[in-house]
Amino acid sequence: MNSLDERTILTAKQPKDEPNCRGWAARDESGILSPYEFYRRPVGDDDVFLRITHCGVCYADVIYTRNIHNSSMYPTVPGHEIVGVVEKVGANVTKFKIGDHAGVETYVDSCRDCKYCDINMEVYCSKGCVYTISGTNFDGTPSQGGYSSFIVVHERYCYTIPEKLPPSLAAPLLCAGITVYSPMMRHGMNQAGKSLGVIGMGGLGHMAVKFGKAFGLHVTVLSTSLSKKDDALNKLKADRFVLSSNKEEMESISKSLDFIIDTASGDHPMDAYLPLLKVGGILALVGAPSGGIKFHPINFLIGMKSISGSTVGGTKQTQEMIDFCAEHGIYPEIEVIPIEYANEALERLIKGDVKYRFVIDIANSLK
Amino acid sequence: MNSLDERTILTAKQPKDEPNCRGWAARDESGILSPYEFYRRPVGDDDVFLRITHCGVCYADVIYTRNIHNSSMYPTVPGHEIVGVVEKVGANVTKFKIGDHAGVETYVDSCRDCKYCDINMEVYCSKGCVYTISGTNFDGTPSQGGYSSFIVVHERYCYTIPEKLPPSLAAPLLCAGITVYSPMMRHGMNQAGKSLGVIGMGGLGHMAVKFGKAFGLHVTVLSTSLSKKDDALNKLKADRFVLSSNKEEMESISKSLDFIIDTASGDHPMDAYLPLLKVGGILALVGAPSGGIKFHPINFLIGMKSISGSTVGGTKQTQEMIDFCAEHGIYPEIEVIPIEYANEALERLIKGDVKYRFVIDIANSLK
Repeated sequence: MNSLDERTILTAKQPKDEPNCRGWAARDESGILSPYEFYRRPVGDDDVFLRITHCGVCYADVIYTRNIHNSSMYPTVPGHEIVGVVEKVGANVTKFKIGDHAGVETYVDSCRDCKYCDINMEVYCSKGCVYTISGTNFDGTPSQGGYSSFIVVHERYCYTIPEKLPPSLAAPLLCAGITVYSPMMRHGMNQAGKSLGVIGMGGLGHMAVKFGKAFGLHVTVLSTSLSKKDDALNKLKADRFVLSSNKEEMESISKSLDFIIDTASGDHPMDAYLPLLKVGGILALVGAPSGGIKFHPINFLIGMKSISGSTVGGTKQTQEMIDFCAEHGIYPEIEVIPIEYANEALERLIKGDVKYRFVIDIANSLK
Repeated sequence: MNSLDERTILTAKQPKDEPNCRGWAARDESGILSPYEFYRRPVGDDDVFLRITHCGVCYADVIYTRNIHNSSMYPTVPGHEIVGVVEKVGANVTKFKIGDHAGVETYVDSCRDCKYCDINMEVYCSKGCVYTISGTNFDGTPSQGGYSSFIVVHERYCYTIPEKLPPSLAAPLLCAGITVYSPMMRHGMNQAGKSLGVIGMGGLGHMAVKFGKAFGLHVTVLSTSLSKKDDALNKLKADRFVLSSNKEEMESISKSLDFIIDTASGDHPMDAYLPLLKVGGILALVGAPSGGIKFHPINFLIGMKSISGSTVGGTKQTQEMIDFCAEHGIYPEIEVIPIEYANEALERLIKGDVKYRFVIDIANSLK
């Protein structure tokens, strides 16, 4: 039993200023993570208490810990690709029982009463969903992410992790996976025989390639780095690799793609990619290019092209995606790390030095 | 009988360097128009000979005559909103008979054999459609627009102008009308009860308002000029007018629009307009903003928004739009001018000083 003894304290409804959960948090815009103890609410009637075993490391963790979008509240515990074991459930919980594997994605609550919640698009909740990191729970406490020992979440925002899906491999599905799956489904990028271009070969991009192949698409990886070529073609089984800095190669695939999914977060020129789309083609934007979006309208107009944005998915679609991955063996490529390596992992993530997702082994390293 | 006697010459298959048609052309990038005689092909078996009576003045006429897109071939006869009377038809022509009113839009030919032509989206022809202005006909002659006495066009690219639609009012439908109608139909902006914002109150924008009201939408005009308010609300029957430079007014309609149709060609900030869209909202771009398209991605991503481009419509949709306008009395607001006024009209168009479309009375002024 540890010094916090979370379960006993939770049952006793301890005061909100009394810590009951261990995690690693950034204290300021340096973003440097260090051990931190904080409060999580007791298990309510609709809640699931999840003992976290694994948490994926997402670029959002860089954004939140360094306050890149001016939306961080410190101390902030990052991590929104959370998988663990159900250890306690509230009286009304029906989806989970003790011992189940479950996951939590990038939001942990929403109003549950608006037109978007009504159609299970909770992430677009009219009143704003509660983000897993640096949000504010309905009880007024700050929401804190999965670089921590446990989390308490309304069962609606917890996902069943099927037995055949290893928990470490499930974690990256909860942001990277759903972020690319959602627009792929929305825009019909699951129609076998269509051609897909993937910009950016990171955590999101490599999942887009895997989904693309699972859907029967012809997949072209568009990368600024020749070092990604071997993996793209041989490990991820993409059909084609094009170095996006090579104008001739890019011209040779002009008007050849039905869709592009753009996962890159660095500044990159849309005018180089939009001409690759066929008439009526769609570029689904899921990254947030640092330089903003810029393009000339003429090619866009005469090609009847579209750019479409989205964030993750609703709860129903997220579960559907998890089940699809379990059924078809669509697993991310991961590097498992201990929590003590989190700061170095974030530095490596910024440099793009990861193949293709870090997953923190919370169960064995956060003591 | 005039000195050219077009019909006689055409029948005699005169050499291509011998003029048979009168028009007004720009000779260089000054864009200044002056009388010009040039050659048009004889009437082929599938062709319609159209004696032009009216031609709308479109911003494209500024673009072509001044070579703004570096695509002009001089001399260039502008005008791609063409209406006239059928004076001769080829042996295979079935859609038209002598004396019919007919129209021609922004393209006069296409390969008629590709996947886009096959589904009547000829403007997106794989081999490139032949534009009405500054294009190259399949016989190698330059295509020339409707500031001219007649035109010879394959019947597929000619439209029936119903009797109850006055020819002068039909002309602006052939570019301004179809340019806004096409994306409105594609994106479901014809669903009664939805909310539409219209950016830009010119030739295109005022037609978008009229279509919006005909479709039963709640229409908001977004304009930089308060001088458009009275017309927007009282003449065009828009439901709401918002001065886009007024931040408070703009904030008050945040997240209220299902669609925006953006007809403005001047530089304007997308970041001011995208927040007006509801979750999943679509901005249909039909103008070509001079400063390009620029926006920050975050609001776009978390609102699941889209920007979609298009040009005019295919032949089938264009006829459908003309018939819809005739049936519902959807007429543009026009100012009829003689050809001698064309240069001044283009200057006024650049300044936005037109309510809302100039139409040249070719029949009575081009002698």
